[in-house]
Amino acid sequence: MPSYIAPVDDMMFLFEKLRDNKNYNELEKYKDVSPELVKDILEEAAKINQNLILPLAKAGDENPAILENGVVRTPPGYKEAYQKYIEDGWTSLSCDPKYGGQGMPRTVSAFFDEMISSASLAFKLYSELTLGAYNCIHHHATDEIKNKYLPKMVEGKWSGTMCLTEPVCGTDLGLLKTKAIEQPDGTYKITGQKIFITSGDHDLTENIIHLVIARATDSPKGTKGISLFLVPKFIVKEDGTVGSRNGISTGSIETKMGIKGSATCVLNFDEATGIMIGPKNKGLSQMFTMMNLERIVVGIQGLGISEIAYQNSLNYAKERKQGKSNNNKSESGKADSIIEHADIRKTLLNMKSIIEGERALCFWLSQQTEVSLNHDDQKIKQEALDMVSLMTPVVKSLFSDLGMEITSDAMQIFGGYGYTKDQGIEQLYRDNRITPIYEGTNSVQAADLVFRKLSTKNGNIVDKFMNLIKSETNSDDEKMKPFVDTLNYNLGILKKFSDWTIDKIKTNKDDVSAAANDYLKTLGYISLAFSWVKVLTVSFKDFEENKKFHEDKINTAKFYFEKVLPRAEQHYKSAISGSSNIMNFKFN
Amino acid sequence: MPSYIAPVDDMMFLFEKLRDNKNYNELEKYKDVSPELVKDILEEAAKINQNLILPLAKAGDENPAILENGVVRTPPGYKEAYQKYIEDGWTSLSCDPKYGGQGMPRTVSAFFDEMISSASLAFKLYSELTLGAYNCIHHHATDEIKNKYLPKMVEGKWSGTMCLTEPVCGTDLGLLKTKAIEQPDGTYKITGQKIFITSGDHDLTENIIHLVIARATDSPKGTKGISLFLVPKFIVKEDGTVGSRNGISTGSIETKMGIKGSATCVLNFDEATGIMIGPKNKGLSQMFTMMNLERIVVGIQGLGISEIAYQNSLNYAKERKQGKSNNNKSESGKADSIIEHADIRKTLLNMKSIIEGERALCFWLSQQTEVSLNHDDQKIKQEALDMVSLMTPVVKSLFSDLGMEITSDAMQIFGGYGYTKDQGIEQLYRDNRITPIYEGTNSVQAADLVFRKLSTKNGNIVDKFMNLIKSETNSDDEKMKPFVDTLNYNLGILKKFSDWTIDKIKTNKDDVSAAANDYLKTLGYISLAFSWVKVLTVSFKDFEENKKFHEDKINTAKFYFEKVLPRAEQHYKSAISGSSNIMNFKFN
Repeated sequence: MPSYIAPVDDMMFLFEKLRDNKNYNELEKYKDVSPELVKDILEEAAKINQNLILPLAKAGDENPAILENGVVRTPPGYKEAYQKYIEDGWTSLSCDPKYGGQGMPRTVSAFFDEMISSASLAFKLYSELTLGAYNCIHHHATDEIKNKYLPKMVEGKWSGTMCLTEPVCGTDLGLLKTKAIEQPDGTYKITGQKIFITSGDHDLTENIIHLVIARATDSPKGTKGISLFLVPKFIVKEDGTVGSRNGISTGSIETKMGIKGSATCVLNFDEATGIMIGPKNKGLSQMFTMMNLERIVVGIQGLGISEIAYQNSLNYAKERKQGKSNNNKSESGKADSIIEHADIRKTLLNMKSIIEGERALCFWLSQQTEVSLNHDDQKIKQEALDMVSLMTPVVKSLFSDLGMEITSDAMQIFGGYGYTKDQGIEQLYRDNRITPIYEGTNSVQAADLVFRKLSTKNGNIVDKFMNLIKSETNSDDEKMKPFVDTLNYNLGILKKFSDWTIDKIKTNKDDVSAAANDYLKTLGYISLAFSWVKVLTVSFKDFEENKKFHEDKINTAKFYFEKVLPRAEQHYKSAISGSSNIMNFKFN
Repeated sequence: MPSYIAPVDDMMFLFEKLRDNKNYNELEKYKDVSPELVKDILEEAAKINQNLILPLAKAGDENPAILENGVVRTPPGYKEAYQKYIEDGWTSLSCDPKYGGQGMPRTVSAFFDEMISSASLAFKLYSELTLGAYNCIHHHATDEIKNKYLPKMVEGKWSGTMCLTEPVCGTDLGLLKTKAIEQPDGTYKITGQKIFITSGDHDLTENIIHLVIARATDSPKGTKGISLFLVPKFIVKEDGTVGSRNGISTGSIETKMGIKGSATCVLNFDEATGIMIGPKNKGLSQMFTMMNLERIVVGIQGLGISEIAYQNSLNYAKERKQGKSNNNKSESGKADSIIEHADIRKTLLNMKSIIEGERALCFWLSQQTEVSLNHDDQKIKQEALDMVSLMTPVVKSLFSDLGMEITSDAMQIFGGYGYTKDQGIEQLYRDNRITPIYEGTNSVQAADLVFRKLSTKNGNIVDKFMNLIKSETNSDDEKMKPFVDTLNYNLGILKKFSDWTIDKIKTNKDDVSAAANDYLKTLGYISLAFSWVKVLTVSFKDFEENKKFHEDKINTAKFYFEKVLPRAEQHYKSAISGSSNIMNFKFN
């Protein structure tokens, strides 16, 4: 089983030194969230993830969730762990105190998301979608509904799902077939089949609140006729207690490559009673409130799995003795630890420089997210939202793809032992492999980025992002100069690539589609470089305070700039050769 | 279950049009291997792989090989299929007619290796190592031993293994602990533990011939004291029949991420009787006869799995309707097949251009291999061997890594359905994941390439390879010019990178170690471009003969040159920034 020590020091470094968003720091509601409080929370979070949740990863992989006589059973140990997990209040961390939450900002809860992704992604998923559903209800439902459903969800006694996908309707939600028929009492009867429903059924909570998109009988075709419904597994009575079973049954659960502890369900809705949430035919935009926050969390999943893969690779590289390094002069044939070999060191630094850059970028994004949700000034709020919208597909796709690179490299470091089940490394690779797929495949994210996020009714968003980077990385420090210069060189590339893209959207959309994944990567690697420059600014300034820590940061950043960042330009060059040959090709 | 149609047309194209190695064509022993004969063989091969072997893939994944009361049982259906497989003579395809083989060259048997890798890698492995052991015995053993063991191995009644790895001795064979004690009758008693032994035990054959490396009691430490032993599972009596059980037991079999149908064994040798093969203390070089040919086959495994992943992705992309393409003007919301989307087309062409380039490169290499083994002129033989030695780590690593890229892209095309077990796509991804690990991890291959293959006692081998490329791609055809020019530009990069590497070996080996994986990739992508230019020469010349076929080749090559080949330069640029930061970094 892989070991795991939560990187609390790095998280606290970010919280203490890089909580520098002026608009975030103005938010009244988080005034009391002090570093001391956050440190206490993170230390408790480390304990529960390291001790209680980490062992569930292997348990879930060896004993996947099963469907027996219509009932889904989670893996051994999940129920007891979940009980402790909600008793300690972890489901309520970021929720509104009005409904029993602890009201922590994303600058804190994102760290928890990372830790639990490291410990067990499959277990995490049982509460993750609850939070998604909570957010959606919190934003769009009436007070009556909120008062009735949210407290139990915050407490973790009830869980939530998001029911979008159908057999012929994945990315393309306009093809949706599930029907909603209005009843005299204002409720709806929902009928249809939903597939790939994460935590669609299980035995951890006493009720499951499904958020379902469906088409009312009088609604138009396509995406403009989709409404959102709250459909509980058990009808909730007036007094808030659980009543009779609703018309929802579990058709089957998927046998998957990884995250086997998580029950991925086919749900059949057969005249199930649902309540419409928010205005009719606006279901898709309401669902996307939830989807967008969720997509960032998927990126964080990739980060979390990368972190545990790195930690175990590093430990193994120190222990495993094999071969002589170039500097071994021993005649006795004594082997070196493989961490002495240049290519292993390079692989480890590649992991580390990506992971710490991602964590810093996430922290920056968490501040922007809170501003986008909570600031009083509408203009500031919108500007932050533009940044969050731009970075959502980037974080989702880049972090999940790099999670594959990192878990794969971890397997290579473990050699044959990485391919066998004993060490648990191959499980990290399999578990992470869902992240580039779910919540919209990474190609869908890339298309979303180039066609909908770069340039919007609010202007040229990527230009604004580049200006923001320039203003936040402006430094007179001589030591910073090589990094800032390299960053600026890459911003020049991003500018050219962005202008090319925005121009091509008007003249040749296929060129843009074919370049979309590359564009996302270019923007992503430069965003990580931006984060590293922010880290460096602190590390050079506070160097004497904690030499070892900051020296580590500076050298890791150097590696990132020398060996990882050049990928940004490579993607640009590969992308701009156009698509005519691709589009004209006649496949057999 | 994935479908599979063997690409016989493309294989026959290569055999008919690109069998252009003058030295190969001089080989007397293959004079009778006509295109008609090869076509017959490939069509029969297609049948057995498509019909008999393909279904074993899923069977083996669902019911892995198991160890029961000391006996290894292969998955259901394997025994019957293996029986048919040997009855039809497939184990003997490339073997010496003197021992019952069909004497086919690698230009034919490599196609079979590809097909069976597409159909079921796990099943393939049961006979693959037999061929490895056959080659090793055929090269190094006495006639007496050959006459006694080879006919049954060629027939497939007996199988073979290669027993190298031990718990603390993987890449670094100098650490080997297994002991060999000489007996009065000239045999040895072998004692020690071997791990990760592919087909180490199973129920498909009546005997298993283990080739074991071990250290004789009076041999020196390190790699210079390793000898090679033939150790049969059952002692073979004078009359060639199977006698009593030898002192070998199966400790356990590994639970692996993929190739679950293949039994990967821990073998305990307890005073097992063995016969020394070849001269004492030269075991490592003898084993490498087998290892090197085997490494090329691992590359071909990656190619085979890529081919079936591509075929199924293409079929699915044509069937699955989702989203509107950029050119869809339909107002009705009718979705397009996803093959209409630019990024899906790009992914498919990426697969296709890599796969067909690999197949052509393999075919070129097969001719070189036969020359290196069979030519009468020692100089020609050595020159061919130099090329084979240079390309062995490249084919092994590049094809296996690109197999991961291609199977991963296949999963993305299948979306959520790619992550579930039903379609069998995720199995291709898991099965292929062993190929960058076994027979020496890809980083070990890269180190072998840069430190031992570029420049040898026979001179600057990579320079010779570049000269060979230039002479084989010299063309006056105007249509060829853009391709040849781009190839030459890249050869300029390869020249710089090679000179840098050869120079750095003298001054800073760590720089070379850190750059090794990049160097391998640069050389690899340029080698594929070389193969594509050879294909193009034929396609432009014979265009009118088969327009559709050659147009397909030309446009696929265009894609390769525009979108894939630029990676060669990217690897160069990333590599040459040196390793001082990497080597000085203080890992926590």
